[in-house]
Amino acid sequence: MKVNPISVNPISGFPEWLPNLKLAEQRIINSIREQYELFGFTPIETAAVERMEVLKAKGGEDAHKQIFSLSNADDAGSSLGLHFDLTVPISRYVTQHCEELIFPFRRYQIQKVWRGEKAQKGRFREFYQCDIDIIGRNILDLIHDAEIPVIINLVFEKLGLNGYKIHISNRKVLAAFLLAIGVIEAESDNIIKIIDTLPNDGKETVVERILAKGLTDAQVTKVFDFLSCISIEQAKQSMVDVNADLVGIDELDQVVSNAIILGMPKEKLILDLTIARGLDYYTGTIYETFLDGKKDWGSICSGGRFDTLASYFSTHKFPGVGVSIGLTRLFKMMVDSGMVDVSETTPTRVLVTCQDRQKYLSSYLGLAKTLRTAGVPTEVYFNHDSLREQIGYASSKGIRFAIIAGDTEFDNDTVMLKDLLRKSQEQVTGDSMVCTIKRKLEA
Amino acid sequence: MKVNPISVNPISGFPEWLPNLKLAEQRIINSIREQYELFGFTPIETAAVERMEVLKAKGGEDAHKQIFSLSNADDAGSSLGLHFDLTVPISRYVTQHCEELIFPFRRYQIQKVWRGEKAQKGRFREFYQCDIDIIGRNILDLIHDAEIPVIINLVFEKLGLNGYKIHISNRKVLAAFLLAIGVIEAESDNIIKIIDTLPNDGKETVVERILAKGLTDAQVTKVFDFLSCISIEQAKQSMVDVNADLVGIDELDQVVSNAIILGMPKEKLILDLTIARGLDYYTGTIYETFLDGKKDWGSICSGGRFDTLASYFSTHKFPGVGVSIGLTRLFKMMVDSGMVDVSETTPTRVLVTCQDRQKYLSSYLGLAKTLRTAGVPTEVYFNHDSLREQIGYASSKGIRFAIIAGDTEFDNDTVMLKDLLRKSQEQVTGDSMVCTIKRKLEA
Repeated sequence: MKVNPISVNPISGFPEWLPNLKLAEQRIINSIREQYELFGFTPIETAAVERMEVLKAKGGEDAHKQIFSLSNADDAGSSLGLHFDLTVPISRYVTQHCEELIFPFRRYQIQKVWRGEKAQKGRFREFYQCDIDIIGRNILDLIHDAEIPVIINLVFEKLGLNGYKIHISNRKVLAAFLLAIGVIEAESDNIIKIIDTLPNDGKETVVERILAKGLTDAQVTKVFDFLSCISIEQAKQSMVDVNADLVGIDELDQVVSNAIILGMPKEKLILDLTIARGLDYYTGTIYETFLDGKKDWGSICSGGRFDTLASYFSTHKFPGVGVSIGLTRLFKMMVDSGMVDVSETTPTRVLVTCQDRQKYLSSYLGLAKTLRTAGVPTEVYFNHDSLREQIGYASSKGIRFAIIAGDTEFDNDTVMLKDLLRKSQEQVTGDSMVCTIKRKLEA
Repeated sequence: MKVNPISVNPISGFPEWLPNLKLAEQRIINSIREQYELFGFTPIETAAVERMEVLKAKGGEDAHKQIFSLSNADDAGSSLGLHFDLTVPISRYVTQHCEELIFPFRRYQIQKVWRGEKAQKGRFREFYQCDIDIIGRNILDLIHDAEIPVIINLVFEKLGLNGYKIHISNRKVLAAFLLAIGVIEAESDNIIKIIDTLPNDGKETVVERILAKGLTDAQVTKVFDFLSCISIEQAKQSMVDVNADLVGIDELDQVVSNAIILGMPKEKLILDLTIARGLDYYTGTIYETFLDGKKDWGSICSGGRFDTLASYFSTHKFPGVGVSIGLTRLFKMMVDSGMVDVSETTPTRVLVTCQDRQKYLSSYLGLAKTLRTAGVPTEVYFNHDSLREQIGYASSKGIRFAIIAGDTEFDNDTVMLKDLLRKSQEQVTGDSMVCTIKRKLEA
């Protein structure tokens, strides 16, 4: 034994939950999984580890800096890194297995990702992403861009998150407008990235930064007039006015109309020309999602169309569209806001107490077996403690029922069923025990 | 676009599955999870990443060499590594949260672990472990050592793995015997590790290695006589004969008797004094599990009692006992042996085809919504392809049903339901569609 124990302090940015939170997180993950499957997405899991060159294929400098690379004693891990998202891995996976998959390929992926950024409030270095993507071979119909917000809307409804807006835009729109007003193509990406910081840094700072890039005051005014468009018609008119390419705005128009036909509530889908997405691989439609009154939470679900990502891995085209729910952060914020039931600390519903372990152990085990066979999670209290201590264990763990049985009960083929939540107890026969418990659990 | 695409070849030791295998693996994980919860184990997830000093606290040189350490551009990951098992992390976690947990703490953990060993057949560098452990505060009743094989037995029964044996021993037994026949304590661990290689390397090699450690021929004979004991009585007699400490054999006796009382089939629990477990943290009972006729698969589920592991993190004692199913390897071997149904490639059960997307899109979506609300995973075929191509898509993906509807059907409030498995079709009314499909799926 060491004299100075090794530190067990939490490592910043690597969240872990106590049992009640983990149970709640698992319920939420199951709900998302179920919705994804109802829409015909199949689960896929890729290795946590990719070749560094795959991870760095595309994604932007910021993403590259955040990659955790691996090494070990035999250097068996050199040139490998942990994935920082699930979009690059699925593009690699689809390319690798294209002859074995059926297209359009609809997959979901719920896995941890890692980003070696400096830990700060609400920023995690290890967190869950829950992704869906639809990936085509050579082409992918624009209708799938419209399907995505519809699905996400239902996922969030099921999670009880009703007050939110999905912001939508198209990467080509702002790029075309900038080009049309005389911004050179090489600068366009930088300007868009600056605009992306608008919600955090405010207009004044953003204007300064854009001016520093060499745009004139007149250009800046045009840009901000354009960004403030609240309808596609208005945006399109502004683009026609400057003779901009209309491919992007026409796509956006079609995606929004189709999403509404597919069942997306109109008022939850918001045109927002200021969104740009941090990752470099998006080429068309882009989505971000904000909870009403929680702008400071940032986007809780983001994504878009990526038509060229797979081109780094193949000479064939595998265009895709999808979104990712940043689950860990969303979950943490929901918990902190009291939006999640975190009262359960165990799956156990029944504790079979031991009055006389020596004499009745196999009877206690028989009761537990009956309950488990009926699908009721059950523990047997094995330690030689007083009944009071046994009931205390059940209460403190939040176990709903305790079963008490000794000579009297076994002689009459009954058990005493104690409802620790309702603070009641009743004698039930061995035969009716399961039904009684199930009825009370469902009530 | 790059001229030379980045390699997408698999990285050896990091397994990934096609959709049908991932669906099968998910079914197996769900089955294990369900059994663990029925026995009152609560899910816990620890970060994939631990401090290197935590990972190296105990585990043995072999484990340390296999740890993948992390680094990134900001060196934010230095002194961090990926966990190589889930036992060290849970010991750390329990120590960290001991004031917030209720003991005995029953938790399960189903997560990936990473080992940077040289990849070889059947050895993975990233794989799932499915662990259960029961951890006490200060003490943990020996009855829990008996509970473990009982639970594992039921888990394996549910997976359809009936032909297997759980081998059981106790670390103290062989150590006490070796000490009693004159092997110095410092050598004892090494001798035990050599004996652990018996199933792989054979008796001749093992004898040579033991002799090289300085044991006499007479001692070696005694050791092999002892290892061949097939009952606890016989082993105990041999220990009495050499005046060995009997604590370990008495524990083993009690654990085996209690396991049988708790419902463990006698013939599946085998005394095996040759097992020793690779990891250094076990202090008492140890388990390994072998499938009948598949000795070459190695142990598919191993574990034991660890009374001192937490002492590296705390001055308090948190003794534990548990096992780990090495799921990825087991799953791969089950698939290779045809023991797993891998026929499904999607959760989708119904494809709603589009005869006239322009005219009836919202009706098709209505049908899909009805089915999804009833819990039936459903896709709508959105692309403008011929009905033949749409049905071809459904067949190739293994989707059971296709729904076809056009003017005739919608005029009569019916749909054509095509059963692609049974190769039949029938007109059903809109109202009976869900029931008909559900009945056929359950048949």
